[in-house]
Amino acid sequence: MRIIEQARAPNPRRVRIFLAEKGIQVPFQQIDLTQLQHRTEDYRRINPAAQVPVLLLDDGTAISESVAICRYFEELQPEPALFGAGAVGRAQVEMWNRRIEHGVYAHILGCFRHTHKAMAALESPQVPAWGEVCRSRAAEALKPIDRELRDSQFIAGSALTVADITLLVAVDFMKPARIDRPAGLSGLDRWYAEVSARPSAAA
Amino acid sequence: MRIIEQARAPNPRRVRIFLAEKGIQVPFQQIDLTQLQHRTEDYRRINPAAQVPVLLLDDGTAISESVAICRYFEELQPEPALFGAGAVGRAQVEMWNRRIEHGVYAHILGCFRHTHKAMAALESPQVPAWGEVCRSRAAEALKPIDRELRDSQFIAGSALTVADITLLVAVDFMKPARIDRPAGLSGLDRWYAEVSARPSAAA
Repeated sequence: MRIIEQARAPNPRRVRIFLAEKGIQVPFQQIDLTQLQHRTEDYRRINPAAQVPVLLLDDGTAISESVAICRYFEELQPEPALFGAGAVGRAQVEMWNRRIEHGVYAHILGCFRHTHKAMAALESPQVPAWGEVCRSRAAEALKPIDRELRDSQFIAGSALTVADITLLVAVDFMKPARIDRPAGLSGLDRWYAEVSARPSAAA
Repeated sequence: MRIIEQARAPNPRRVRIFLAEKGIQVPFQQIDLTQLQHRTEDYRRINPAAQVPVLLLDDGTAISESVAICRYFEELQPEPALFGAGAVGRAQVEMWNRRIEHGVYAHILGCFRHTHKAMAALESPQVPAWGEVCRSRAAEALKPIDRELRDSQFIAGSALTVADITLLVAVDFMKPARIDRPAGLSGLDRWYAEVSARPSAAA
């Protein structure tokens, strides 16, 4: 078993933090996206979307999509339960993870891809006007997240879940995307300091 | 328990088809998006993203995000297993559902929201250039889906899953988004005829 990734890209970090929280070790193989190693025919056979990371199982099965890889390890080793527990708990983790993915993370990535010069060759065509819409929507979408985090230790309750991991990776990716974190988000700031201090954040 | 939705919107249809495949009946309450009933302060307290559908449980718990609502019902009634079975099976359903969501469905919705006149007031600002990028990416992303469906009865194997439901809703929403289905996608066409003929497709 191994994971093909690029260490600097944000989605592979979601999987690394998840594995660190689970205490699971998996070998990693690096590929270089700037050299377009993810756009070869061989790689597209593994993942038609030409993205990292991909989990390769020993029988050759390839699992792409970060959350699918995380879910595989949740099934293998259920504790700690990073996708929630019980019907309502699991639905709430799914809900928060998706709210953060759609409202925050997708817009941060959209801003980066459509406004950053480093992405000009990889994201073709860039649509800067869309990147600017993404920039303002990402900041706006942090507000209800912040309100939740004023009353709740983690985003989906009293335990860290995959939704916190998505949020941490998203917030940290605001720096390369050059999106300012809005001032006055005291719930988010408190949460960010705590989650960033966990050993898994360095994964 | 009840589901707040608008019958014509695509995401609520994902939940209705899912419930029909499970044989579960839930009361529905309609709201009118054109009258901005999803943008009131009361509704945003239920779902800050101001989207439909929302599942309201009897204790007042609100679950938004279509896939989170589906997952709640999968937990309550595991059979038929629409999120897959076993660690690899569940990971593969998650993978295909996300590939379809990110590659196909999100781009169809993006095209609709950013190019359709009916969305001018709801999607502000519209970015038509982004809508056109979405139009071509949606069509492109159908090709690897089609290749899979030439060898596989359903998108994640021999049984219908939530990933097929996402794909059906996406393909049907190409019509309002005015995206032509590319010719020659024989796997997709065969699959579409079969899945559309199921009673759940009318839900």
